[in-house]
Amino acid sequence: MYKVKIIDVESGELLIIMNDKDANEMGINRHDRVRISTNKKFLAAIVQISKTMLKEGEIGVYKNVAHELGLKDGDMVQVAATEKPKSIEFIKKKMDGHELTKDEIRAIVKDITEHNLSDIEMSAYVSAMYMREMNMRETADLTMAMVESGEIIEFDRKPVFDFHSVGGCPGNKVTLIIVPIVAAAGLMIPKTSSRAISSACGTADIFEGIANVILSGADIKRISEQIGGVIAWGGGVNIAPADDIIIRAEYPLRIDPYAQLIASVMAKKKAVSAEYLLLDIPMGPNTKVPTEELARKYARDFIDLGQKLGIKVECAITYGGQPVGRAVGPALEAREAFVALEGGEAPNSVLEKSCALAGILLEMGGVAQIGQGKQMARDILKSGKALAKMRQIVEAQGGNPNISSKDIKVGEYTHEIVSTVEGYVDNINNKDLVRIARALGAPKDWGAGLVLNKKKGRLVAKGEVLFTLYSNNKKKLEDAVLLAHKLQPITLEGMVIEHIPSYHAMPITTTTTNVVKRL
Amino acid sequence: MYKVKIIDVESGELLIIMNDKDANEMGINRHDRVRISTNKKFLAAIVQISKTMLKEGEIGVYKNVAHELGLKDGDMVQVAATEKPKSIEFIKKKMDGHELTKDEIRAIVKDITEHNLSDIEMSAYVSAMYMREMNMRETADLTMAMVESGEIIEFDRKPVFDFHSVGGCPGNKVTLIIVPIVAAAGLMIPKTSSRAISSACGTADIFEGIANVILSGADIKRISEQIGGVIAWGGGVNIAPADDIIIRAEYPLRIDPYAQLIASVMAKKKAVSAEYLLLDIPMGPNTKVPTEELARKYARDFIDLGQKLGIKVECAITYGGQPVGRAVGPALEAREAFVALEGGEAPNSVLEKSCALAGILLEMGGVAQIGQGKQMARDILKSGKALAKMRQIVEAQGGNPNISSKDIKVGEYTHEIVSTVEGYVDNINNKDLVRIARALGAPKDWGAGLVLNKKKGRLVAKGEVLFTLYSNNKKKLEDAVLLAHKLQPITLEGMVIEHIPSYHAMPITTTTTNVVKRL
Repeated sequence: MYKVKIIDVESGELLIIMNDKDANEMGINRHDRVRISTNKKFLAAIVQISKTMLKEGEIGVYKNVAHELGLKDGDMVQVAATEKPKSIEFIKKKMDGHELTKDEIRAIVKDITEHNLSDIEMSAYVSAMYMREMNMRETADLTMAMVESGEIIEFDRKPVFDFHSVGGCPGNKVTLIIVPIVAAAGLMIPKTSSRAISSACGTADIFEGIANVILSGADIKRISEQIGGVIAWGGGVNIAPADDIIIRAEYPLRIDPYAQLIASVMAKKKAVSAEYLLLDIPMGPNTKVPTEELARKYARDFIDLGQKLGIKVECAITYGGQPVGRAVGPALEAREAFVALEGGEAPNSVLEKSCALAGILLEMGGVAQIGQGKQMARDILKSGKALAKMRQIVEAQGGNPNISSKDIKVGEYTHEIVSTVEGYVDNINNKDLVRIARALGAPKDWGAGLVLNKKKGRLVAKGEVLFTLYSNNKKKLEDAVLLAHKLQPITLEGMVIEHIPSYHAMPITTTTTNVVKRL
Repeated sequence: MYKVKIIDVESGELLIIMNDKDANEMGINRHDRVRISTNKKFLAAIVQISKTMLKEGEIGVYKNVAHELGLKDGDMVQVAATEKPKSIEFIKKKMDGHELTKDEIRAIVKDITEHNLSDIEMSAYVSAMYMREMNMRETADLTMAMVESGEIIEFDRKPVFDFHSVGGCPGNKVTLIIVPIVAAAGLMIPKTSSRAISSACGTADIFEGIANVILSGADIKRISEQIGGVIAWGGGVNIAPADDIIIRAEYPLRIDPYAQLIASVMAKKKAVSAEYLLLDIPMGPNTKVPTEELARKYARDFIDLGQKLGIKVECAITYGGQPVGRAVGPALEAREAFVALEGGEAPNSVLEKSCALAGILLEMGGVAQIGQGKQMARDILKSGKALAKMRQIVEAQGGNPNISSKDIKVGEYTHEIVSTVEGYVDNINNKDLVRIARALGAPKDWGAGLVLNKKKGRLVAKGEVLFTLYSNNKKKLEDAVLLAHKLQPITLEGMVIEHIPSYHAMPITTTTTNVVKRL
């Protein structure tokens, strides 16, 4: 029996720490697994070793393990060496390039969902998925295994429409306009969205400043059936929970295995019983989908997979080579979306994209004639019905029912980046904009982000504003200004990108107060 | 500035823990990297998050980070977000299936050696090496990068001979016989050996009970030049240190990427300036090399790689389908080797293999005519010169110069596993024997292990001993007895392997005192 000492460190893995003498005695090495058991429960945890943090007979229990077993400091547990989960063999099988059976895939997803795999094993899974891929049969089985790993929301009102953007293009606030248009047209669209992982903000991050996005499955059902639309955080309800764990494992490696991406998207849709799904595939440099060839492959595979799952999928390949609209960052994007809903002066790209995509859904739902959807979407937007529907959704999710764009508070501190030359905007680098928005504090600082004043092809005069930075943190604003000068995310035709003086090869910074150095 | 709190947990990664509010404020997530700096030094560490273990403004510093930076509790450090090491891009490039340049490979090895990669990134590296492999040019660059990552031992006495077994076959104590034979014949063989990772024992584990195996590079040089031979632990001297780190990363995944295995072996040899190398490739079921085809591929590639590195390599494919000799476990193997050196009744397989391999080295060194090496080795062994040389080596490494097989203490507690039927031994499962030896306490318990009484093809009477278990721990002996009954590592022709009664599908155990259950 070992005496429990709680270790308050967050971990995705189920971890325990053993005194090195105890571990030696049991022949246990770091990264081995042990079975920890109380009278009532047990689980398998990964071992770390310490020489002096614990006395012999003590065991350090990370809080996730303590939570699962209901342990507190001083409790006694049994510890025994144990085997690896069976699913590791199947990961190895995939590493060896073999096709996995349905049962093998289910075993892997089950162990992922139950946190039975270590970070290292998750990394091996993600790496294997990236390098060996999966065929369509395996992908469909993976999708269903992920769906079955969590809650499935079923509706009495039918049919269920859904929309999803594959992502990778900043400023893509169109969901906030599409959902109310579609709901205002009488279709039901229970939209679950994600939070940012490496982007500036996800739809859930944006909407969180306006209404409650953490809803139960019952809430999602009730609000959708009553109002026709909802905008919830997918992670707040237990749908396809394996997905979140896998995404967290992909994050440190910054890889996005193809079959996993497709399965993850579709699992979240199948789990809300979607029957008609429109997918937005933003394509262009510095997005997830750089070429049209790849965009078409995604579209084909999403449609195929949809067929296997009983979901009618249509895809729209959209232009993602620069942000949609001008605003990047949660509050700034919310404000831009509300300006569009209010009939104000919203950027053309936001209006065009929202109405075109909403129009496809209206045609899929049979409420618009083929070829008439986009016009109908425009009419709904113009009529103020979409705004009214949005306010109903906001109210149902606990927000201010009279909200307008003017109520949305953006970052307190601002800084304008001006052009030092005259010329046409030649390129806008999505990834650099996202880095700057994150440096400003997005998505955690709801008011942080940036607004572009000039987009591709526009003429910029010397001294004219290129973009404006927003933050609620002065220090972050200062750091982001330096980063913006270093990255130069907007380039003009004929501009000198970098000038390296002969006496010193150092990146230029336009300020002398601080020098940005890289480790 | 953050106040340091030392975290005494062993970690291969450079880890720190941040309070969640501090991390949020800096926009840092779990698994991100931060730069920790004092006035004098800095390094990049991986972030873990805690809510209550640390106050705001405190930072938990794992002891390896503290050691690198010379930190103690209460010291103040600066913390800033920082980029990932460049080499992660090159790992990604390999994941994408591309050939790596020499500089890219050196960057990866440098970051591995300096502990700049997280466990997750190391897992991705190992996975990429496993799935994408490397061509011979990359493998040679990898080998040299590993050599240059550590100390290189150079000798004034030339030429330098070396021997290595690829491993995977239990009971392979031949190094302890080959080294003294070769040295007694006047050749110099500075042998560095490994410890067990998942096997029952490495040569370093065996020899550790007899002499000191942790020698400096200077010791290895001095003893080898004076006596002609040394048996040191490779991990005790800083040769190719990247290798140990990579092996530790392979351990949790239990994968052994081909190019990495070849490069690791050759890097350790190049680092001791080997000019002539004999490689033992044990082949057979439940070894690392199950087929002759694969054994030949290994041989070809080792010879090729040797040519690129300036090492003359010869390979011997040996039979590894059952243990070499009868003993498995450190002390038991040491005893069997000393019995052979003393001219006592050693198993034929031990004598045959040792003399055949030593003979090849004698021929490579030109001290024996081609075709005469094995006989010369036998003569040296028979003459007692090998024993005398071994005792010189033991003495030079601080052991008892008069040691004999009778002085070697094996496990105090023993148990004989007897056959319940009569028949010929049909199969001996290497992996099962290793599991049992480890359950008995090997390699940490020097006296633990097992001795086979019957090998393949021999007739066994009902009630006759199949093998004997040894341990210094009574509880471990009991557990291992249960495991042995469950695994049945030795099977006889015509024997019922498992009988599943219709009323209950449970593995048979021959004892009723305890039931072995799997989690």
